[in-house]
Amino acid sequence: MSLLVIGSVAFDAIETPFGKTDKIIGGAATYIALSSSYLEDDINLVAVVGGDFPKEDIKLLESHGIDTEGLQIKEDEKSFFWSGKYHNDMNSRDTLITELNVLENFDPVIPSSYQNSDYVMLGNLSPDVQRKVIERMESKPKLIAMDTMNFWMDISKESLDKTIAMVDVLIINDEEARQLSGEYALVKAAKKIMAMGPQFLIIKKGEHGALLFDSESVYFCPALPLEEVFDPTGAGDTFAGGFIGYLASTDDISFDNMKRAVIYGSAMASFCVEKFGTERLVNLDQSEINSRIQQFIDLSQVQISI
Amino acid sequence: MSLLVIGSVAFDAIETPFGKTDKIIGGAATYIALSSSYLEDDINLVAVVGGDFPKEDIKLLESHGIDTEGLQIKEDEKSFFWSGKYHNDMNSRDTLITELNVLENFDPVIPSSYQNSDYVMLGNLSPDVQRKVIERMESKPKLIAMDTMNFWMDISKESLDKTIAMVDVLIINDEEARQLSGEYALVKAAKKIMAMGPQFLIIKKGEHGALLFDSESVYFCPALPLEEVFDPTGAGDTFAGGFIGYLASTDDISFDNMKRAVIYGSAMASFCVEKFGTERLVNLDQSEINSRIQQFIDLSQVQISI
Repeated sequence: MSLLVIGSVAFDAIETPFGKTDKIIGGAATYIALSSSYLEDDINLVAVVGGDFPKEDIKLLESHGIDTEGLQIKEDEKSFFWSGKYHNDMNSRDTLITELNVLENFDPVIPSSYQNSDYVMLGNLSPDVQRKVIERMESKPKLIAMDTMNFWMDISKESLDKTIAMVDVLIINDEEARQLSGEYALVKAAKKIMAMGPQFLIIKKGEHGALLFDSESVYFCPALPLEEVFDPTGAGDTFAGGFIGYLASTDDISFDNMKRAVIYGSAMASFCVEKFGTERLVNLDQSEINSRIQQFIDLSQVQISI
Repeated sequence: MSLLVIGSVAFDAIETPFGKTDKIIGGAATYIALSSSYLEDDINLVAVVGGDFPKEDIKLLESHGIDTEGLQIKEDEKSFFWSGKYHNDMNSRDTLITELNVLENFDPVIPSSYQNSDYVMLGNLSPDVQRKVIERMESKPKLIAMDTMNFWMDISKESLDKTIAMVDVLIINDEEARQLSGEYALVKAAKKIMAMGPQFLIIKKGEHGALLFDSESVYFCPALPLEEVFDPTGAGDTFAGGFIGYLASTDDISFDNMKRAVIYGSAMASFCVEKFGTERLVNLDQSEINSRIQQFIDLSQVQISI
């Protein structure tokens, strides 16, 4: 089925205890689209870049089967740029530079060939922009999933609430879930957040795995225990891409299939952190992905009867 | 099969954000023995208490089928006493009082009827005492599991290393694994610790679940996401009791069966934290345990094929 992905396509400069990069390709939609491209063929990208964005990076996305008709290029402007430095524990980071540039006035245009996309993944962006995408779709998608971050809870809570009320799946991390709900215990947080609209909620806990909730059930998928996390940038977006890509390719939005989708999201994220930026994500093959999924099965599955 | 449990049988006074207790029955061996008693019938307790320890609490242990022939009663001395206060996040606590009392010179005596116990669980105690138990067994047990804590790493590292080298399964938490190995990443820590002797290692991560390692495999069992943790005291010991109790009752020490044992340990621990001290553990029934195990299956198991 077709999958519409919206989010930033941008430059990042990253520093981790293992080294630092110059400006490299990044952005939520880049990670989401690359990740989902290994699972789903029909991916429609909506984003905006400046004239400074390398054409070969757009070609790279296209070589992964990602349709870039919806990628606006503002020739006279600059692409979104983020620079950050991770602390030694890799769980926290400082933002060094945020230059909104083309994102400042981003008005998402949905090409007619994208209008009837079956699945929509709203990568982290202003909730106003996310909502415009939903409103500009000709037909109601089968499933809309959404990522966001604490920044929007701080400055655009009302708009964020409106957008959250319109989506089927919200994907956030544990701290964001606590902030959004005002509850510390994630089980309580999940109930409050699902009461805001989404039928499904995924709470990502980084190295501690991810929880999937609906009103009746909860599923937990561990993160792969790794010897080394090289660069966590984009891991959450890569998770979202694997999750939504699996749902779109299997076209099954049952809770049971969402459990499998969470495993695929976790597996894709486990690749992402192995190298800087998108480096590991651009060169995967199916057998690597299958054996990573098998690792998750071995890690978490048990023969047990009561 | 028979299971020998050694550890403290003691008084605790606990304060959590939900309330505080007077002196109540506690101690590692108490939690381990109670927890395992729901899974295994033949439990042999080795411990020491003072004359102040209530006879009805010893009867309570016996009513759970726990053999107390190995429970020494030093009539003229006082029982071990620990008092602690949990912080609001329940993940950390301050020790307010530690009175070793009878534990100061504890010399474990293994009654002849215990000498050929098939399984041994060494609850947290001085590694000297733990090692004496191993040395005083007439026949080599099928499996020896051991708990310890950072305190012994600080003050008795050499003795601790000797004891660790003699056991089959070490059960510690994440911070202890990091301290013991000098490695932050748990996968690296696990390799180093297994090189010290144990064929199997369990690393408990509290609300973030538990990892089981052998030299080739790793299994992860989540903790049950709870709305409220009332009192975490004894949860680690209760985990150990469920784990070893399941192994002893099934008499199967394959990695696959250890995975199931970790689920049983996690399920028993999830009961423990629901009330103060041993309150929840003394009144469980089999159907409650079975439905809790089913919750763990629902939480973590997926139908998936590649």
